[in-house]
Amino acid sequence: MARVVVDVMLKPEILDPQGQAVQRALPRLGFEGISDVRQGKRFELEVEGPVDGSALARIRELAETFLANTVIEDFTVKVRETDGTERTVAGSDVPSEGAPA
Amino acid sequence: MARVVVDVMLKPEILDPQGQAVQRALPRLGFEGISDVRQGKRFELEVEGPVDGSALARIRELAETFLANTVIEDFTVKVRETDGTERTVAGSDVPSEGAPA
Repeated sequence: MARVVVDVMLKPEILDPQGQAVQRALPRLGFEGISDVRQGKRFELEVEGPVDGSALARIRELAETFLANTVIEDFTVKVRETDGTERTVAGSDVPSEGAPA
Repeated sequence: MARVVVDVMLKPEILDPQGQAVQRALPRLGFEGISDVRQGKRFELEVEGPVDGSALARIRELAETFLANTVIEDFTVKVRETDGTERTVAGSDVPSEGAPA
């Protein structure tokens, strides 16, 4: 069973009140030296079958149409390798490997 | 300016109604073959100064005490490298590189 991760973050130009609230709380809690915090969502998908080009193309479409609101959010699709690292394969600003030409 | 990422996910044994709602919606939307979805939070921190052992130890403490509720959530601290990959450096189940011995 393969795991694919979709990260969804507000676009840099969109205000992030949640992240700002965290960032402003940090000095009060004794944590200095963090100049910005952005808060977003992380989806971990368990994929049945092989994570090949067509599966990734479908997941990219799923992320674009359903998990992210691409008017205000960017998304990144990553495949979790067996050693635990995550390899970016698609996203708002990454050409999709598995997209039909 | 270095970027450090903290991922916070519900522990595997904790029910995730948000993720379940997403997973159940997928077949209706035409996406088959996703057997499980977990939804969590992603924090992107801009760190002033070098991301060395002591900075990472502070960020690990921050994640553990403030960003995650470690009763029900696991967290992972990652450093974003210049090539965009993210290297796990600490987390609920990773010994901290920068922790005092």
